[in-house]
Amino acid sequence: MAFANIYAGMKFDKAKIVKLKLFETDHLEFAGLLLEPGQSQAAHTHDASDKVLFVIEGVATVSVGGESMELGPGACALAKAGEPHDLANRGRDRVVMLVVSAPPKGKA
Amino acid sequence: MAFANIYAGMKFDKAKIVKLKLFETDHLEFAGLLLEPGQSQAAHTHDASDKVLFVIEGVATVSVGGESMELGPGACALAKAGEPHDLANRGRDRVVMLVVSAPPKGKA
Repeated sequence: MAFANIYAGMKFDKAKIVKLKLFETDHLEFAGLLLEPGQSQAAHTHDASDKVLFVIEGVATVSVGGESMELGPGACALAKAGEPHDLANRGRDRVVMLVVSAPPKGKA
Repeated sequence: MAFANIYAGMKFDKAKIVKLKLFETDHLEFAGLLLEPGQSQAAHTHDASDKVLFVIEGVATVSVGGESMELGPGACALAKAGEPHDLANRGRDRVVMLVVSAPPKGKA
């Protein structure tokens, strides 16, 4: 399918971060991430995939390689293959963000 | 650099579509596209790169493989390698969007 919308079927979950897959090809995965306040993803590394995080709504705290930033709408972070990164919603509002992995983790 | 912001240094140009490169790695290029009303990009194809377009502000008219859609904020389109696609701002407002190419065109 050539078209999608992050707001179609968007549903937060108080139990866990929601990942909405929008597109996947041999070269990239393009998805939404929905974080309730307090939700986080522990530090991890992808051996072969580069990852970009881009904030659409809310404020996400993102660390890459030990450097931490609060990212509001329009801000983005790059974790290259092998770089440890983590993610948290420490704000009061829900976070809507994009995550791009290239190549997709299953195809790296 | 691990962090960037599409609104830092964002500047429209009435003469042409502006591309703001945010990140480039071996696997992906992540950039902003800024379109004044009336600006467009003619149909073209990338032989080896998949491209995702994601609208942040405004309404973009995007065609992929002959199918055309008006994309508002949160909507996105995928043009896989080899699929002809074009892009226009037929609205009254400026368009701010993201474009992801994987692999980057110069490295495909």
